[in-house]
Amino acid sequence: MEKLMTETSLNIGIPKIWRVNLKNKSVSYENIPKSWERLGGRGLVAKFLVDEVVPTCEPLGPMNKLILAPGLLVGHMISSCDRISFGGKSPLTGGVKEANAGGTTGLYMTHLGIKALIIEDQSINNDWSVLFIDSNGIKLDPAEELIGLGVYDCSKKLLDKYGSKIAVALIGRSGEFQLSSAGIQNLDKENIPSRIAARGGLGAVMGSKKIKAIVIDGRIGQKPSIAHPEEFRQAQKIFTKALMEAPQTAVYRDYGTAAMSRMANGFGGLPTNNFSQGQFNNIETISGEYMRNTILERGGEGEPTHACMPGCTIRCSNNYPDRNGNSIVSPIEYETIGLMGSNLGISDLDTVAKINYIVNDLGLDSIEIGAALGVAAKAGIMDFGDGNRAMQLIDEIRSNTPLGRLLGSGATITGKVLGVEQVPAVKGQAMSAYEPRAIKGTGVTYATSPQGADHTSGLTIRAKINHLDPKGQADLSRTVQINMAGYDTLGACIFTGPGFTSAPGTIRDMLNARYDWNVSNDILQELGRTSLKWEHEFNLKAGFSKADDRLPEWMTRVPLSPNNSVFDVSEEDLDGVYNW
Amino acid sequence: MEKLMTETSLNIGIPKIWRVNLKNKSVSYENIPKSWERLGGRGLVAKFLVDEVVPTCEPLGPMNKLILAPGLLVGHMISSCDRISFGGKSPLTGGVKEANAGGTTGLYMTHLGIKALIIEDQSINNDWSVLFIDSNGIKLDPAEELIGLGVYDCSKKLLDKYGSKIAVALIGRSGEFQLSSAGIQNLDKENIPSRIAARGGLGAVMGSKKIKAIVIDGRIGQKPSIAHPEEFRQAQKIFTKALMEAPQTAVYRDYGTAAMSRMANGFGGLPTNNFSQGQFNNIETISGEYMRNTILERGGEGEPTHACMPGCTIRCSNNYPDRNGNSIVSPIEYETIGLMGSNLGISDLDTVAKINYIVNDLGLDSIEIGAALGVAAKAGIMDFGDGNRAMQLIDEIRSNTPLGRLLGSGATITGKVLGVEQVPAVKGQAMSAYEPRAIKGTGVTYATSPQGADHTSGLTIRAKINHLDPKGQADLSRTVQINMAGYDTLGACIFTGPGFTSAPGTIRDMLNARYDWNVSNDILQELGRTSLKWEHEFNLKAGFSKADDRLPEWMTRVPLSPNNSVFDVSEEDLDGVYNW
Repeated sequence: MEKLMTETSLNIGIPKIWRVNLKNKSVSYENIPKSWERLGGRGLVAKFLVDEVVPTCEPLGPMNKLILAPGLLVGHMISSCDRISFGGKSPLTGGVKEANAGGTTGLYMTHLGIKALIIEDQSINNDWSVLFIDSNGIKLDPAEELIGLGVYDCSKKLLDKYGSKIAVALIGRSGEFQLSSAGIQNLDKENIPSRIAARGGLGAVMGSKKIKAIVIDGRIGQKPSIAHPEEFRQAQKIFTKALMEAPQTAVYRDYGTAAMSRMANGFGGLPTNNFSQGQFNNIETISGEYMRNTILERGGEGEPTHACMPGCTIRCSNNYPDRNGNSIVSPIEYETIGLMGSNLGISDLDTVAKINYIVNDLGLDSIEIGAALGVAAKAGIMDFGDGNRAMQLIDEIRSNTPLGRLLGSGATITGKVLGVEQVPAVKGQAMSAYEPRAIKGTGVTYATSPQGADHTSGLTIRAKINHLDPKGQADLSRTVQINMAGYDTLGACIFTGPGFTSAPGTIRDMLNARYDWNVSNDILQELGRTSLKWEHEFNLKAGFSKADDRLPEWMTRVPLSPNNSVFDVSEEDLDGVYNW
Repeated sequence: MEKLMTETSLNIGIPKIWRVNLKNKSVSYENIPKSWERLGGRGLVAKFLVDEVVPTCEPLGPMNKLILAPGLLVGHMISSCDRISFGGKSPLTGGVKEANAGGTTGLYMTHLGIKALIIEDQSINNDWSVLFIDSNGIKLDPAEELIGLGVYDCSKKLLDKYGSKIAVALIGRSGEFQLSSAGIQNLDKENIPSRIAARGGLGAVMGSKKIKAIVIDGRIGQKPSIAHPEEFRQAQKIFTKALMEAPQTAVYRDYGTAAMSRMANGFGGLPTNNFSQGQFNNIETISGEYMRNTILERGGEGEPTHACMPGCTIRCSNNYPDRNGNSIVSPIEYETIGLMGSNLGISDLDTVAKINYIVNDLGLDSIEIGAALGVAAKAGIMDFGDGNRAMQLIDEIRSNTPLGRLLGSGATITGKVLGVEQVPAVKGQAMSAYEPRAIKGTGVTYATSPQGADHTSGLTIRAKINHLDPKGQADLSRTVQINMAGYDTLGACIFTGPGFTSAPGTIRDMLNARYDWNVSNDILQELGRTSLKWEHEFNLKAGFSKADDRLPEWMTRVPLSPNNSVFDVSEEDLDGVYNW
């Protein structure tokens, strides 16, 4: 057990930046720089990257840094607002990367007064460690006995060792292998490592620093102080009520994100057989309705819906059981259904659930791996619909074979190596389960988001517009991207939107009450715009240009059934997304 | 035998652009557009890409085009001036790509009046073809019986079928597999397919168009007309004499390009063990001197030097025999010795020669594959120095396994997939056998050339300067890059420089005499500058930016033995290379 420097007079009531240097084995605590004060989550990640990370550095080399930053609203169990952002230069895209997750990591960090945790450089002796954090500071514990474990076994061992009241952010084998589709998993409120900051390979960055897990002791700590508690409570109450009553969120309470299966299919926007078709013949058996019925029918451990974060009232998560009622995986998300179900031609939800569990256990991004397998199927490495073969291929990842490493490097590289033109990716990152030739506003988001193709950067499917019309999509995407960058800065889940929208002013009020600020009503957009601006700036310095703000050229040329549509939003519109 | 459209009144005495559309199976012949008239080779490739190829297209999709363009001086067997340029969007770099070769392809094209041959789109039925060209036009012959053959067997079959007076540009298995390190091979004057337009994966572009070989019948044809024959002859004579007398070329006449082994090692700039060291302990057995002595000692088919193009007086090529005097490979070049010898820790020249032969037979770029194997060795896939394992790995490429496809996709992707930071590449293309931390001017060329890392874009090792001093290297590289782009536009070999330099005015005189032009003495630089300008323009539109004009970040940080030097030419200097 190696003790790092600890500040004995550490006052966890005053939030600070905590910094670990792995080369020197040193820890430091800094007051929050002025320019970081009004930032958290994604916005803080963006500013940190611009301020501290060499844009052209090797993502898996010593110059890259990993940051953990809770959002601005995190710490008080406001419904769906306790998300933690991870950030660094992405090994997948080569650009900016923020990926966030639910669970308890963000919450416990704020309780120890950690505004941001920054992990720098690399250990010289290459030993694996667990970074343990409590109110006394940080220490590095040896992690050799955890190496080789999947996230499920690993988190059990950590819970045994450090007690059950901990938050954990950890990597699976894929992170150990430094694969570009490795994410960072976090315990949910039932202590299952199911909440993954999935996208862009930040698990590989953590692996490159030989940190298997970050453990945050939640036993001693306190909620962040609130300047005006009464005003805060009042705003929180209004928001929670609005969120509970919002009709858009009700559907997630019943069906989880899987509610989107039928909707996307209805629009002809469900990725099918490596983005070859927009509708799947066997949609019914991968629908949210089917999933809910199956969970209810099978019973046992299965819960049709539950919350991933303490205090969340939306409860979009689930626990999917087998025929005997034993959990296969918790949760199945729509993105996984789209990418590992229809995109692979797999219609058996049990199979999707099993694949999902294995992929989770390895610590992989199920979107990226689903897309990579789709590309591999197109190359003839597997047949569409062959779930056993898909599992064999994922076993190749577990065994760290060249083929496994290839698939684990994501869809773009898999396509390059296997000679497949039809790769659904932007900036090296695979698209999620919304076909951009059918949902063109989301296509604009994929094309222009500094994060690479990513639905959480600005999903437009629920807008009441003609999704096939190229006109107006750039304006729509811009609005949603700004909002989403704002929510990600607050630590608010993508699903809080309807709540905040029907309770205007509550973001402003909660921020002003908590921090004694005086921000105005457009604070969400202000946070979103500044975050996007910094992200864009970092990407430009890392080598991106307008040509990277495009969908793959084949999607502008090859029509998608059943609408026979291509992606035809003009380049002028795409280039105008950042004009605000 | 499928006949394409043929123009019956084709007058091969008037040079034209020949164009084949594989989708329509049509051929057309166009007069040379005004803006292409004063271009050839690399400059014409650059202009063609800017004019005709969508910069963001998929390099292996139907929107990419392949061009063959002889240089401006090609057609008259001026010593070392009959090179053929191939061009297209590179599947390796994603940017502009021109790769040129000696042999007879350029010569025979000019004899049929082909200023440029452009191959467009892709066949719908996916059948492989041989593109046969003679004075009557172009036809597509079925090529199924050639598929699966290496370039040596394939070219023998083509010579049997079409007769011995043909030029052939063909791809090996790697081009069939559309691997990003596949080149295009050309017959030398002994009808051996040893002259490879190696870099940037243009063989994969040819493979994506299902053209196994382009055969040019040289029986009927004529040298391109000369406006002022006497002046032409006079200038040619002066140039040839100057070239023969230039002391810098004499060394190649004795030792071939392998003369560079000792020189690079002396500067501490010989890539060793995946660019980990700048000197190789076993330099002597991979030196040009050792090679020459071995060839002389073993005799048989081996020739210490010979010419690759008819009329070349430098004769830098060779034919390396085994102990019984039978040819192992023709030729061994320094670049292969550096990348597949010292860079892999292999000191046995016979082994290097054997690997070289196999790599040639597959149609691969030996630089890119040598670099990829070095990266694989760093990842533990082979031991440095283990030639048998290297050959096994190349067999994986032949067998088209995932590992083989990975290595065949080049060093950058191999590094990404295998998790190796220490990858010697710029813009996705591997460096050649000059360590940029020791030969910093060449490092500037690697960083800033629109072609990606490439010594032929501007080699500085023979300049009489301190190669370790970062100052002045950008100016030197700029000068040499401009000259080289000029020579590549003329179709002149990299080794003609000393000849043209000591016979000033001969380029001007030959061009004016042949074409009835009135160009001035700085025509070489003018051609070079315009070519670089267009290449840069295409790359910008394809998505490159200043951040791509950098060496890998680790080379600015990790010192190289024995000089303990890092690459420290300033970013300002690098960004200034294109200020002329």
